[in-house]
Amino acid sequence: MNDDPEAPARRDQVEGEGAIRGTGRMEAFADAVFAIAFTLPIVEIVLPAIEHDGAELGRELAALHPQYGGYLLASAVIGVYWVQHHFSGAIFRTTGHWFVIATTVFLAAIGFIAFPARVLTEHFSDVAARPAAAHYWVVSLSILSLAWLVKWTVGVLQGHIDARLEDGYVDRLTRNFRIVAVLNLLAAILVFVNWQAGLALSAILTTWLLLPPETPRYITLAPVIEGDS
Amino acid sequence: MNDDPEAPARRDQVEGEGAIRGTGRMEAFADAVFAIAFTLPIVEIVLPAIEHDGAELGRELAALHPQYGGYLLASAVIGVYWVQHHFSGAIFRTTGHWFVIATTVFLAAIGFIAFPARVLTEHFSDVAARPAAAHYWVVSLSILSLAWLVKWTVGVLQGHIDARLEDGYVDRLTRNFRIVAVLNLLAAILVFVNWQAGLALSAILTTWLLLPPETPRYITLAPVIEGDS
Amino acid sequence: MNDDPEAPARRDQVEGEGAIRGTGRMEAFADAVFAIAFTLPIVEIVLPAIEHDGAELGRELAALHPQYGGYLLASAVIGVYWVQHHFSGAIFRTTGHWFVIATTVFLAAIGFIAFPARVLTEHFSDVAARPAAAHYWVVSLSILSLAWLVKWTVGVLQGHIDARLEDGYVDRLTRNFRIVAVLNLLAAILVFVNWQAGLALSAILTTWLLLPPETPRYITLAPVIEGDS
Amino acid sequence: MNDDPEAPARRDQVEGEGAIRGTGRMEAFADAVFAIAFTLPIVEIVLPAIEHDGAELGRELAALHPQYGGYLLASAVIGVYWVQHHFSGAIFRTTGHWFVIATTVFLAAIGFIAFPARVLTEHFSDVAARPAAAHYWVVSLSILSLAWLVKWTVGVLQGHIDARLEDGYVDRLTRNFRIVAVLNLLAAILVFVNWQAGLALSAILTTWLLLPPETPRYITLAPVIEGDS
Repeated sequence: MNDDPEAPARRDQVEGEGAIRGTGRMEAFADAVFAIAFTLPIVEIVLPAIEHDGAELGRELAALHPQYGGYLLASAVIGVYWVQHHFSGAIFRTTGHWFVIATTVFLAAIGFIAFPARVLTEHFSDVAARPAAAHYWVVSLSILSLAWLVKWTVGVLQGHIDARLEDGYVDRLTRNFRIVAVLNLLAAILVFVNWQAGLALSAILTTWLLLPPETPRYITLAPVIEGDS
Repeated sequence: MNDDPEAPARRDQVEGEGAIRGTGRMEAFADAVFAIAFTLPIVEIVLPAIEHDGAELGRELAALHPQYGGYLLASAVIGVYWVQHHFSGAIFRTTGHWFVIATTVFLAAIGFIAFPARVLTEHFSDVAARPAAAHYWVVSLSILSLAWLVKWTVGVLQGHIDARLEDGYVDRLTRNFRIVAVLNLLAAILVFVNWQAGLALSAILTTWLLLPPETPRYITLAPVIEGDS
Repeated sequence: MNDDPEAPARRDQVEGEGAIRGTGRMEAFADAVFAIAFTLPIVEIVLPAIEHDGAELGRELAALHPQYGGYLLASAVIGVYWVQHHFSGAIFRTTGHWFVIATTVFLAAIGFIAFPARVLTEHFSDVAARPAAAHYWVVSLSILSLAWLVKWTVGVLQGHIDARLEDGYVDRLTRNFRIVAVLNLLAAILVFVNWQAGLALSAILTTWLLLPPETPRYITLAPVIEGDS
Repeated sequence: MNDDPEAPARRDQVEGEGAIRGTGRMEAFADAVFAIAFTLPIVEIVLPAIEHDGAELGRELAALHPQYGGYLLASAVIGVYWVQHHFSGAIFRTTGHWFVIATTVFLAAIGFIAFPARVLTEHFSDVAARPAAAHYWVVSLSILSLAWLVKWTVGVLQGHIDARLEDGYVDRLTRNFRIVAVLNLLAAILVFVNWQAGLALSAILTTWLLLPPETPRYITLAPVIEGDS
């Protein structure tokens, strides 16, 4: 068995399994989308006009706090998902047509999330706008969570998981991602009943993703020793 | 023969064949252009003004649906082409001067396509603007399809295909890409006769690219066995 | 011991150490964020309006010098940090959950820094605005410096340093980064007392990062020779 | 001798040579900057306003031709330089502090070039603006050409060239890059005397970069055979 996780899945060995490649380039594309989604929101912070009274610049820069908040919130959510994605890159070993498509759909959700982050932070100072801003944000986050679960599930079902991982390990990850997605959907319903509660549940779920995932467990092919019980 | 698809094509072994390298860095550049083209359209979605009545925020966010449509349409087309490009990365084994240039031309078309997507979706609600929006979109898509065919053909003619692939396999892919490009050109003519029909044909062709490509077929160098006929 | 710095840290060998991978993909994500932060400021330079008197174009282009300055200043700071980051990529050998998170926080600061660069350069021509612009810029740079130190420290404490490096070498780097961060914090205090002095200290510290870092020192496992004292 | 162009230059073997690494990550950073500079100009093409008469959409889209021109011109110049950069990635084998810094300076010029491209194409329809637009464009291109020569020269002088290349081969490349840079500087002087002539010379020089570079020549270490003359 070849130990290079990218090369072997690419050639004759897998003939018959379709357009399967290692995960290298799919990860690279995903990393680039994450990086752009992460960095792009800076262009939305508007420089105080140069024509204004210069002595007011300090106050004007401080007044941009909702825009800084939007940048930070988008960075935090995209960053947390990137950490999960980086981790899962060691769990998958190959890619395939439908897995690549599911990843692309998930990445479209990642690319979008900075917009709801701005809706929430920039409109939050207006009390009348808060419920709608919360609805929009929590629903967007639950779609993102669902897109992640779909991508993960397609990868698992299409057999792209590293075969050397213990089944129990992969099953536990799948269960965790399902729980998070279901709770996010609940938050997306709850937010229409009580926007504060929905927002709080959603925030807890995203923070939860910050916790380190369980260490991968590999099947250790112990040598069979004669006479050993 | 070296099994690492990038290293061997780079050095002394290919002296005399020009500035040939493995496909790694060309794929990386292309992946980055795809990723940016895919993510950039989010900056075109305009946040409802903070000065507006906050109670209207929900309605204003819903009214952005043509802009969401533009983001989704651009993501879908760029995503579909990225899936094809990711797949073809396993078909090519080296790059060269003219192949790199043809790829760059194709990538300029990828980088442009989000603009026609916005023209179509943002102007579609205006009945008087629909024909022109459809012309623009379908012609742009047919140029993209043609640019893909040119890139593919240059790669094949310059000998960058993995030599271990069956000739018949590569020929079938070439034929498919030609059919799609010719039908896209037909759609670009048809759209000026009947914009609805042209738009429909174009949509079918792009959706068709979602289908998984044929599994690569490799020449299996079977060992010659004495006495075998 | 495997000499490939990415592959070995990824699989069974490190079972039990958590979601540890080689640094390849984390570096790729960081490189992409650096590249976007580096290139994005160009969109902030506003083209002179086409409706203006064409004979004035030369003068109008020259009058954009504060915007060119913002582009150059952001490029310089991001470039200098990228050089440091590129260098440190050879010092670390693995990644882990908290190291990835600390890197993401540092990258959010990198993505932000072009905005303070524009505040400083575009408002500098207004004498009344200079103190506030200097406060904003120097404080932002000191946060960036602190974020770098945090990232470095997390990487070192979590054991991601290449084990073949001499301890003394890593300690000297750590001490240098601490000195730079502390001096940056001093500059961030000084700038409120005397903005010119704070700005000057900050500029010196960033220029200092341009100096080449000390050559890595590796533990040489000399063969034990019999009879050798 | 290790055949992997990236791994060997990174570790103990080169102790004492400073912060030397393979070219992989520097190329990745450069590729990302190229990709962003290449794709970003699309955001500068302004969608015709939705409030306008829809029946005018076709005419309005056609009237955007100077903006399409700016996109195409920027793509062409960045694309041509990327092709050269991709090629030179096979010529260099290691990186070092000053080479990385010179590359960063060159990349800042690449990131900037889309702005002069817009100045030229968007102001060209105004006869009075043409000389200033031509000056700006040709001077910018000559700075880019000079930045390329500086980067190349630093790489060569710091010993980062693949040692297996023939000296004569590298010398011929250096001479070519010097000729192009000097002619670009001449174009930057000529454009102030006669803007049409300066623009024409500059265009010829950039088109010249489209020609395939000379095939790398490697020193072949032929085995010494006894008795062979």
